[in-house]
Amino acid sequence: MATTSPGYSITLRVEVTDSNATALVTTAVAAAGGTLTALDVVESHGSRLVVDVTGDAIDADHAARITAAVEQVPGVTVRNVSDRTFLIHLGGKLSVTPTVSLKNRDDLSRAYTPGVARVCLAIAANPADARKLTIKRNTVAIVTDGSAVLGLGNIGPAAAMPVMEGKAALFKRFAGVDAWPVCLDTQDVEEIIRTVQIIAPTYGGINLEDISAPRCFEVERRLRELLDIPVFHDDQHGTAIVVLAALTNALRVVGKKLPDTRIVVSGVGAAGNAIIRLLDAQGATDIVGCGRHGVVEADADGGDEFRQWIAQHTNPRHQTGSLREALVGADVFIGVSAPNLLTGDDIATMAPNAIVFALANPDPEVDPTAAARTAAVVATGRSDYPNQINNVLAFPGFFRGMLDSGAHIITDECMLAAAHAIAEAVTPDELNASYIVPSVFDPQVATAVASAVRDAATSQR
Amino acid sequence: MATTSPGYSITLRVEVTDSNATALVTTAVAAAGGTLTALDVVESHGSRLVVDVTGDAIDADHAARITAAVEQVPGVTVRNVSDRTFLIHLGGKLSVTPTVSLKNRDDLSRAYTPGVARVCLAIAANPADARKLTIKRNTVAIVTDGSAVLGLGNIGPAAAMPVMEGKAALFKRFAGVDAWPVCLDTQDVEEIIRTVQIIAPTYGGINLEDISAPRCFEVERRLRELLDIPVFHDDQHGTAIVVLAALTNALRVVGKKLPDTRIVVSGVGAAGNAIIRLLDAQGATDIVGCGRHGVVEADADGGDEFRQWIAQHTNPRHQTGSLREALVGADVFIGVSAPNLLTGDDIATMAPNAIVFALANPDPEVDPTAAARTAAVVATGRSDYPNQINNVLAFPGFFRGMLDSGAHIITDECMLAAAHAIAEAVTPDELNASYIVPSVFDPQVATAVASAVRDAATSQR
Repeated sequence: MATTSPGYSITLRVEVTDSNATALVTTAVAAAGGTLTALDVVESHGSRLVVDVTGDAIDADHAARITAAVEQVPGVTVRNVSDRTFLIHLGGKLSVTPTVSLKNRDDLSRAYTPGVARVCLAIAANPADARKLTIKRNTVAIVTDGSAVLGLGNIGPAAAMPVMEGKAALFKRFAGVDAWPVCLDTQDVEEIIRTVQIIAPTYGGINLEDISAPRCFEVERRLRELLDIPVFHDDQHGTAIVVLAALTNALRVVGKKLPDTRIVVSGVGAAGNAIIRLLDAQGATDIVGCGRHGVVEADADGGDEFRQWIAQHTNPRHQTGSLREALVGADVFIGVSAPNLLTGDDIATMAPNAIVFALANPDPEVDPTAAARTAAVVATGRSDYPNQINNVLAFPGFFRGMLDSGAHIITDECMLAAAHAIAEAVTPDELNASYIVPSVFDPQVATAVASAVRDAATSQR
Repeated sequence: MATTSPGYSITLRVEVTDSNATALVTTAVAAAGGTLTALDVVESHGSRLVVDVTGDAIDADHAARITAAVEQVPGVTVRNVSDRTFLIHLGGKLSVTPTVSLKNRDDLSRAYTPGVARVCLAIAANPADARKLTIKRNTVAIVTDGSAVLGLGNIGPAAAMPVMEGKAALFKRFAGVDAWPVCLDTQDVEEIIRTVQIIAPTYGGINLEDISAPRCFEVERRLRELLDIPVFHDDQHGTAIVVLAALTNALRVVGKKLPDTRIVVSGVGAAGNAIIRLLDAQGATDIVGCGRHGVVEADADGGDEFRQWIAQHTNPRHQTGSLREALVGADVFIGVSAPNLLTGDDIATMAPNAIVFALANPDPEVDPTAAARTAAVVATGRSDYPNQINNVLAFPGFFRGMLDSGAHIITDECMLAAAHAIAEAVTPDELNASYIVPSVFDPQVATAVASAVRDAATSQR
C-alpha cells in the first residue's frame, strides 16, 4: 500500500560526464521505486552536465535507497541531496506583517505614539471596540500542548510548532483568518486552561489542536465557560463536521437514510467522541462505538464521563464483543483509531452497499483497495486515494463564520450547518462513489461554510 | 507648549455651495488653531463642491473646536468627520502571512501533512533544530499586562493592544523581526512569569512592555533565570540605551567626560532604574536619583531591593532634599518622571553647559524652550522638538542582534554596545546641540545596533 508522496520529495544535484548518463539516472530512480518529477540542467560544459533530479519517495529510508541507486550509476557523482520538505521549512512558515504604512513621522505618530494613545483610551472606555480597532476580530490562537500531534503522539510543544504553523498558513490561505501558534510548555489541564484564559485578550477565537483525550474534553468545556470568544477543538469537531458531510453524500450515493443506518465507529477518543455526538445530533439512531477492547457497553464500569456519555447514547441493540463482530451487517464503518485493524473479508461481512471511512493516518484501519472489493463507497484521510476526509474543508470557513458573526457559542446547529455546506459543495451532477467531498482547493467551500456558520451562529443570539 | 500633531489628524468632508466658501474654510481652520495639511476636491457639480479638508489638531477637544468653526462658515455643510488615526486602526495593524506556497496538493503535502511530520520528528530528536525549522528564531513576544501603558496608566490588556501591535509593526519595519502581541489578562507577578514560561516555545525572545514597577523588575529577573531566550524590558533597557547614546553625544558637544559629570535622574521607576544602572556600568561616578519625595538616600528605610540598590550605588556626596535642590550645580538632568516638575529658572541653577533630557511624555518635566534659555543641550521624548529620545532607535536592532547571535544572556556589554552604535550613527560632521541622536528613519541605525549587539553577545558565549 506504500506509495511515493511529495511530502518525501528529494532533489539530487548530480554531475554526469556524458549525456547518456542522464538517461541512466532516470532509469535508476524508477528502478528504485522513486517517482521522478523533474530534471533541471543547472550547468552545461560540453559533455559534462550538472543536473537537479527531483523525485518523490515513500519515506526517508526509501529516499536513501534512491540516492544510493543513483550513486552507483557509472559516470555519475551525487554532489548534494536536498529535501524539499525541509527546505521550505527553513526559517518557519509564517511572517508577521504590518498592515499600516510606517514611512515617515506622520505615519509613526498615528500608528504609534502619540496618536495610538487615543485608540487605547477608546478601547478602555468601551472594551467592545477591541473588535474594531485591533487584530482581535480576525485572529485565532492555535493552541496545543504537543501531547497528541498528528499520529506522532506526545512530542511536546517545540516539535509541534511546524504543524501549528502549517495550520495557521491554511487558515490564511483558505479563509483570510490570521492565526497564531500558541505551543504550551505544560500538559497540566488546569495550567492549560488558565494560560489560555490569560492570553485570550489578543484573540477572537481559540482553536485547540492535538491535545490528547480525555484532557481535551475538559479543556474545551471549561474554556467555553470562561471565555467570551468561540473555542473549537479541531481534532474533534473539524473531523466530525467533515465526516458528517462525507457521510451525507455517501448515503445519497447508496440511497440510504441516516436514521435507518447501522453505524460502527472505531475509536472513542477526541475524534470518535465528536463524530458520535454530531451524528446523534443529525438524527442517527443506531451507532455502536468501539474502543481498544471492543464495543462500548452501557453497563461498562468506570471510564470518564465522556466515555459514559457514549455508553448511554449509543448501542441501542446492546451489542457486545469485538469491533469485528460489531461490523457484521453494519451499513457504515467510521474508523478514527489505528492502522490495519480490519481486512477486506471483515468489510465483506457488512450490509450491502456498505460505506467505509478508514481515517487513521497515514495507514488506514483497512486497506482501501481491499475494502472497495465489497464496499460501495470508501474514503480515507489520505490525498492519494479518492474521497479524502480533510479537516481543511471545515476549520478555515468555520472560524471565518464565527468571527464574522461576533457570536461565541458554538452550537450543534453551527456544526451541522458547516457539514451541510460542505456536502452541498458537491453538486448532484458531480456526486458519485469516488467524489463525495469537494476538493480542498475548491474556493467555494470556505465561503459557503463561513456563510452557513455565520447565519447559524447569528440566529442563536 | 501645545502644538498640533498628525496623531490628532482629522478629515472633514464638507459640501460648499460656492467656491469662495472653500477659502473661508481654510481660514476658519487656521483661525481655530488647526494646521491644514490637505484639501482634496471629491466631487464638483458646477459651483457646488464636496471637499475633504484634512488638518492636525492638538487634541480631541481641539479637533471638535475646529469642526465647530468650519460648521459656522456660511454656505458650508460638514457631512462627515473622520479621524485618520482611528481609520488606520480599523481591523488592527498586523497580518499573519504564510511564507510558503499553498497552491496545490504537493505544496500542502510538504507544508502540512504528511510531510510536516518529518520536520516535527527532527525537532523532537534535536530540539535546537526549532531555531532552523520554525519561526522561533525570528520571532519575539511583546508581553504586557497593561498595567503601565504609555502615560495612560493601568488600562488593562485589551486597551494595550494598539500599542503592542504598533510595536510589532516597528520591529518588522526597522529590523525584520516578527513580533507578536501577548496581552495578559492578569497582573499577578507569579502568573505573568508562569504564563510567559508556558508560551515561550514559540518565541526566540521576550520583550516585556509597559509593566509597572517594581513588578517589572521581578518579572524580568525571574524570566531571565527560567528561559533560554533573551528577556528584555524595553521600558527599562531600551530607554537606558538611547539615553546613554544621547548623553554620550551631548557630552561630546559640551566637551565634558562622563566620569566627571554630576547627573541628576528624576524618576526611579522602570526607566530611571535602568538608566542609573547603565550609566553606572559606563563609568558615571556621581548620580543622584530623585523619586516623588526627593533624593533617594542611602540610609532611607524601606523600599524594595531595587530602590535599595539605587540608594547604595548613587549619591556619593550624600545629598538630601528635593529634586530642585539636587539640581543646583549639576551637569546633566535626566527626567523620566512627570510633567512640569521644573521651570527654566531651576535649569538656570545647573552648571554651565548643562544637558537636559526631559523625557516625560507627552508633557516634559520642563518646557524645553524655557530649559534651552540656559542649557546647552535639550532633548525630549517628543517628535516636534529636536533630539527625540525614542526607543525605536534601540529595540528593533537590539533584538535583531540577539536573535542572530543565538545567545540568550543580555549583558551590560550588549547594552553598552547598542548605545555606542546609536551614538556613532551621528558623524562628527553632523553632531551639534540639536542633533545628538540619529533620526529614527535612518536605515543604518538598526543594522549598526544589530551588528554591535551580535558581536557583544557572541563574545560572551
